[in-house]
Amino acid sequence: MNEFVIRPDPLDPRLTERVEGIDQTGQQIETRVTVERALTIFLNSQEIVTAMTINDYPEYLALGYLLNQHMLRSDDTVTGVDYDEELAVVVVRTKRKTNYEKKLKKKVQTSGCAQGTVFGDLMEALEGVTLPDAELRTSWLYRLTHQINTTPSLYLEAGAIHGCVLAQEDRPLVYMEDVGRHNAVDKIAGWMFKHGVPARDKIFYTTGRLTSEMIIKTVRMGIPILVSRSGFTAWGVELARRANLTLIGRARGKRFIALSGEHRIVFDQDLAYVEEESAKHRRKAAVHDD
Amino acid sequence: MNEFVIRPDPLDPRLTERVEGIDQTGQQIETRVTVERALTIFLNSQEIVTAMTINDYPEYLALGYLLNQHMLRSDDTVTGVDYDEELAVVVVRTKRKTNYEKKLKKKVQTSGCAQGTVFGDLMEALEGVTLPDAELRTSWLYRLTHQINTTPSLYLEAGAIHGCVLAQEDRPLVYMEDVGRHNAVDKIAGWMFKHGVPARDKIFYTTGRLTSEMIIKTVRMGIPILVSRSGFTAWGVELARRANLTLIGRARGKRFIALSGEHRIVFDQDLAYVEEESAKHRRKAAVHDD
Repeated sequence: MNEFVIRPDPLDPRLTERVEGIDQTGQQIETRVTVERALTIFLNSQEIVTAMTINDYPEYLALGYLLNQHMLRSDDTVTGVDYDEELAVVVVRTKRKTNYEKKLKKKVQTSGCAQGTVFGDLMEALEGVTLPDAELRTSWLYRLTHQINTTPSLYLEAGAIHGCVLAQEDRPLVYMEDVGRHNAVDKIAGWMFKHGVPARDKIFYTTGRLTSEMIIKTVRMGIPILVSRSGFTAWGVELARRANLTLIGRARGKRFIALSGEHRIVFDQDLAYVEEESAKHRRKAAVHDD
Repeated sequence: MNEFVIRPDPLDPRLTERVEGIDQTGQQIETRVTVERALTIFLNSQEIVTAMTINDYPEYLALGYLLNQHMLRSDDTVTGVDYDEELAVVVVRTKRKTNYEKKLKKKVQTSGCAQGTVFGDLMEALEGVTLPDAELRTSWLYRLTHQINTTPSLYLEAGAIHGCVLAQEDRPLVYMEDVGRHNAVDKIAGWMFKHGVPARDKIFYTTGRLTSEMIIKTVRMGIPILVSRSGFTAWGVELARRANLTLIGRARGKRFIALSGEHRIVFDQDLAYVEEESAKHRRKAAVHDD
């Protein structure tokens, strides 16, 4: 598993807390729960947002959040990212002068969390983006999901957390987890920006639902293929089709369904050699939610 | 199952859409996906928020949203709730004059979706609320979760949806589903407000994670017991303990864990007579997320 550049560290003591309680027999037990920390993101002198996060990568989170909100442009020169652990503040500084106060007043709430908007605005967000040709071999897909599912993670350790993986062919590169799914995505976007990693040959994997926000973030990042072990929503499918995104959901064991961009899929895997998910993993997976 | 006052109607054609795609063998398939619709909520003359919802109960959603945001008070006189399907707008009118424009500018983003805030503010939200004494018999809990799990739902039909249930003893009363979990909660709050249903003897069940928002909404609604099949976050546990809320998570088959308010639990069920979740349900459950 040396393919990962970043992978979860479930043993990092900062990411979980031990708590005491009782189980169904009334016995005292001790268990681990995922932490949430408030992190305030500034762009230059303006306070932009306070996110609740496990806070393992505050700098990638800040960069990715600002990119995905279109407050930071892909061609911006970032002159510094300063994280103050004590204040729980991260400041992104750019060469370009920025002023986003007005933008912040327009927030509305969507099913997939955070700032969203109505369908027309959603479509607008995708205008001008053309996703590249790319290929998804089913043999890659099965090796990739098997690796992700068997990698130790906070999710397997404490549950109640989202995971996202940036992959290339059958290799997972960056596996981020967070209490908010959008944070996990943003941390990957921040990592790609910081290291100048191209999107055109990548595959994005998420444990969460394929909502409109998830589609929009993936398309804006320029990644042509999105895979999830979870289900679809109608707007998510509609947006993916308009953006020509390959959208694969309910990917578990042998199974998956593609509802958009099927032309990128190459069926090179003999399904007789693909294992179903183990009962152990399936049971664990059921804890995954939200 | 005549206990339900409201339960999911997975056959309602407005709630799902048929879409075509392909499966892992490359075969053309047809599947159902949950709809999302934009609904704009007004309080008197002010536009408050646009929510994405399955839109089965726009009036309960509007009332519950405003209540849970403290824009509508429990003692307010509602003079009308007007829903315009074509405009996708619902207007809640109150006798009291309202003005919440300022409040809307303070939105920040949290892990559990929507408007949140930092821990100190979260604590403040719970000040002055005292949860009542109440009892949760484990025999109720097992009958309740078994009924919820075996009730036909959009979740079982199309996945990618949240469910919340308001229950009394071992009886589920109102089972709401929505693409956004907070919507499902708000619809229940709206139903309780509309019908003057007391909270003190109720149990709240959610399919989603026990995040800080979920705890806060439950406590503000005055419900003393919160149960989930999913996991905990650290702030959620901390808030539940300070609010004296009975918090039960990872409730599957025989198992559960209580991390707060254990004193309300009465262990009257002989565990030898409780079934584990069936493999069928477990597998289905694994699709549940977000």
